[in-house]
Amino acid sequence: MARIVVKFGGTSVADPSRIENAADKVLAEWKRGNQVVVVVSAMAGITNQLVDYCQQIDPGCDACEYDAVVASGEQITSGLMALALQKRGLKSRSFMGWQVPIICNEQHGRSRIDNIPPEKLLSEIENDIIPVIAGFQGISKSGRVSTLGRGGSDTTAVAVAAALKAHRCDIYTDVDGVYTTDPRMVSSAKKLDRVSYEEMLEMAALGAKVLHPRSVELAMAWNVQVQVLSSFETKIGSDLPGTIIVGEDNIVEKQIVNGVTYTRNESKITLLSVSDMPGVAAAIFAPLGGAGINVDVIVQNVSPDGKTTDMTFTVPKSDAIKAKTLLEKLDFLADTEIRIVNNIAKISIIGIGMSSHTSVAKTMFTTLAENKINIQAITTSEIKVSVLIDEKFTELAVRALHSAFGLDQEEAS
Amino acid sequence: MARIVVKFGGTSVADPSRIENAADKVLAEWKRGNQVVVVVSAMAGITNQLVDYCQQIDPGCDACEYDAVVASGEQITSGLMALALQKRGLKSRSFMGWQVPIICNEQHGRSRIDNIPPEKLLSEIENDIIPVIAGFQGISKSGRVSTLGRGGSDTTAVAVAAALKAHRCDIYTDVDGVYTTDPRMVSSAKKLDRVSYEEMLEMAALGAKVLHPRSVELAMAWNVQVQVLSSFETKIGSDLPGTIIVGEDNIVEKQIVNGVTYTRNESKITLLSVSDMPGVAAAIFAPLGGAGINVDVIVQNVSPDGKTTDMTFTVPKSDAIKAKTLLEKLDFLADTEIRIVNNIAKISIIGIGMSSHTSVAKTMFTTLAENKINIQAITTSEIKVSVLIDEKFTELAVRALHSAFGLDQEEAS
Repeated sequence: MARIVVKFGGTSVADPSRIENAADKVLAEWKRGNQVVVVVSAMAGITNQLVDYCQQIDPGCDACEYDAVVASGEQITSGLMALALQKRGLKSRSFMGWQVPIICNEQHGRSRIDNIPPEKLLSEIENDIIPVIAGFQGISKSGRVSTLGRGGSDTTAVAVAAALKAHRCDIYTDVDGVYTTDPRMVSSAKKLDRVSYEEMLEMAALGAKVLHPRSVELAMAWNVQVQVLSSFETKIGSDLPGTIIVGEDNIVEKQIVNGVTYTRNESKITLLSVSDMPGVAAAIFAPLGGAGINVDVIVQNVSPDGKTTDMTFTVPKSDAIKAKTLLEKLDFLADTEIRIVNNIAKISIIGIGMSSHTSVAKTMFTTLAENKINIQAITTSEIKVSVLIDEKFTELAVRALHSAFGLDQEEAS
Repeated sequence: MARIVVKFGGTSVADPSRIENAADKVLAEWKRGNQVVVVVSAMAGITNQLVDYCQQIDPGCDACEYDAVVASGEQITSGLMALALQKRGLKSRSFMGWQVPIICNEQHGRSRIDNIPPEKLLSEIENDIIPVIAGFQGISKSGRVSTLGRGGSDTTAVAVAAALKAHRCDIYTDVDGVYTTDPRMVSSAKKLDRVSYEEMLEMAALGAKVLHPRSVELAMAWNVQVQVLSSFETKIGSDLPGTIIVGEDNIVEKQIVNGVTYTRNESKITLLSVSDMPGVAAAIFAPLGGAGINVDVIVQNVSPDGKTTDMTFTVPKSDAIKAKTLLEKLDFLADTEIRIVNNIAKISIIGIGMSSHTSVAKTMFTTLAENKINIQAITTSEIKVSVLIDEKFTELAVRALHSAFGLDQEEAS
């Protein structure tokens, strides 16, 4: 008998009939002899409606009251799911965050879970009762309702799985797993049966739509085995219904490259001849961070003359002008030329087997060269190589790399 | 400085802009130097939507989960109202039932309030914070969310006013007070400045749309002064913006008749020659009550021969056949003729001054006779006389009695 936490996202519980479908999946898991704990998101669209109400009254509204309002979405689903399970002859009851309790810090609107005392949930499970927990929400130490920020229900599910020492955390969503690249761009994209926490985090640009990065971090920290799978259908031809996300040690056959990801709408900002001395990078990026500008890739070359260096980084295209204005105000950049190139894409190849294979980067660069795609900057990590290219080559680059690394799915016969 | 509980019904908080209007009324009360505590209903339509979700999944659903789902409606409004008050520079925070706490019994779906410990609310008030309490909901002793049944937010408001020893409980709704009769039927109907708890309860047939009878009982028990007033506009020509509902002792000039009410769609059931002995009435009405049939007027005449009597009572027209079937099964009624007359209306005149004026009933009967309306049965209480008549004369009877008792509003010049 396994203990499994099952989480349903917003599209999987979008209306009463979908809630009933989801309840059927819980029933099937129960019939396999497993203990089941359910975590639910708000019905698709409800959270947006509630956020809109708050912003109509006050766009800069108090996060504490915002939380009280938006948390009601998951509360509704938890009660409805418990009803659907009861209708199927199962014993079930709903839990709001404060009833579990899911104890959070006071950072309203983007709270973090401090602790989930497991006693109450375990007592229900031992009485054959299926707890249905409202995701995304908790209770602060001062007794107020807090929420975990967008994607928070994934985090709730993984945290509950950790607290209950569950064997697996199944995340039902509207995609049937993690793919080698965006299936909307590359039709031969392949569903991965297994992926490591580290790869999943690096795939966040694509994967955020599948699983919130924060929940992956939490799963990695507590070694929770997570499975992403679809509430709607299962792709034929896979060994597993979804994608299992596990520790690297649990992946025997490590793929050299497991995925190709991309982000578009970036701008590349280059600072020419910046003084090369300690503290410069911090002095450059602190004001950008303070203005809420998300800096992604940062490349700094060695200093040829030992005195100055060139620094390149990317920001979202919509923030490029704002970033330039902020940088121009910095005294120590007075003599520095600031160049902006818009319409930049970042293409990455990701794989935990990469660190032991030196030819990966070479294959990537050769493939891009063969397709006459100029590389504007390169960064690497243990399990990832990223390049910046002209945005218009995004699709070409992704498809070429996907083929070059043998990720294309064979045509179904 | 007075302490005032202010309650807004569903149409008064139907969308963010109406919530802002309601917040303006709270601000005005605050500026008068008063302490204010707010109680809110769900935004109009939301509760129905939530009930519908529950019933789509299971029409006979578990009341405990039903409560968890429907309570979210008031939770949403409480947060939004707190935001609207904060926007106006006031300090405010929302309270869900479990946060106050509003401690209820375990009768889910129609729970009763057992106790409201006032400490937490008083501490907020003393810190100049306006608490906004989600109406209609509480927490049971086992820590589950419970709801008070329809109209429950009025009950919450009066109970909070009692717990906080408030000077007044203002109920903002979509009507501007209690009228001498249904203003849709009689255009000369007059808003009452003051009405007693007892009169308000007797007017329940009309008044339920204004104020839930249960909240009136509670107000009477705890001597809470309640004011009903409109969130939208105030009728010109009244001394008070709304209608104040108070104890009889607080009404100096007691009107002989204060209102004319009616209910339609009743059926009159008459049992001819029932044995006149102790226990018969109980034996007749117990099975009807057990079947959920609401018996209203009951008239039993003296027994002319000391052995048998005729008994008349009314039930909703939709229950008449069911009632007859149940009665026919009773052995001791085997020889009793059961007559049903459909399309019956009950017309009542109500007034606390009535008990000291003997001519009231005579005026009523004369007025009806002058209009050629036959009286089929009569019952009286200390402050009410009711008659059963043919339903087709309802409007004629109400208008004639309204005029006869001098209740018509003078024409605005």
